[in-house]
Amino acid sequence: MDDLANKALLTELLALESRAMDQWGAGDPAGFLELSDDDVSYFDPWQQHRLNSHEELTELYEGLRGQVHLDSFEFRNPAVVAVSDLAVLSFVFTSTSAGTTQSWNATEVFRRNDEGQWHLVHTHWSITEAGQKLDKLASS
Amino acid sequence: MDDLANKALLTELLALESRAMDQWGAGDPAGFLELSDDDVSYFDPWQQHRLNSHEELTELYEGLRGQVHLDSFEFRNPAVVAVSDLAVLSFVFTSTSAGTTQSWNATEVFRRNDEGQWHLVHTHWSITEAGQKLDKLASS
Repeated sequence: MDDLANKALLTELLALESRAMDQWGAGDPAGFLELSDDDVSYFDPWQQHRLNSHEELTELYEGLRGQVHLDSFEFRNPAVVAVSDLAVLSFVFTSTSAGTTQSWNATEVFRRNDEGQWHLVHTHWSITEAGQKLDKLASS
Repeated sequence: MDDLANKALLTELLALESRAMDQWGAGDPAGFLELSDDDVSYFDPWQQHRLNSHEELTELYEGLRGQVHLDSFEFRNPAVVAVSDLAVLSFVFTSTSAGTTQSWNATEVFRRNDEGQWHLVHTHWSITEAGQKLDKLASS
């Protein structure tokens, strides 16, 4: 994939991510649920296990409906690596809510279907520098 | 990709990961450095930013040479999703060192080159349930 195609794909995937995040930040998980494929797998810092289906993700996300309110957010240093119909988007996500800013490492894997639509097949969210923070709290 | 091909690919990628981890657990980062491509990007819970090249990963890993000693480890619930020459392996990694067991969420993205060899182009390691642990420590 040449630089121009890579840049176009990055723009396309970020637009999908951004639209879903607009809804998420208003307490509505529908955007991410629509963006996720049936066989999506999912890591976040509160789950004991990886979630392995849209059904499991729906259960988690519907339980959070109305609870998330982001005042602003930003995708920092987004990058994509892609071959054919699989694309791996990664970025640091910063969000501000009630004056507190949080930072996340994110890996979003998209697969393109026969209709040309990209859907998430794997999601990995983690807290930036969680290791540093845990070390600091444990020693304080 | 049918189930049989998926299973064969999972076995192949896990073998690569396992071999590199054998070296890693003996304090030698060479296996992961050889497995990683020039344009590898990398998240772990101690980095402030995503690393974006083999050069940056080498600097990090060489600084850890001789410091890691794993008595045992296990890849739990490994799964792979692949299209063409890009494959996303994910698993929960548990390792035991000096009687302490740790658990990690891992996403390893491999790209196959023209010679048929798979190399890492993206790595995301995070601490399983870091969110729970941070919440618990912060409130204690």
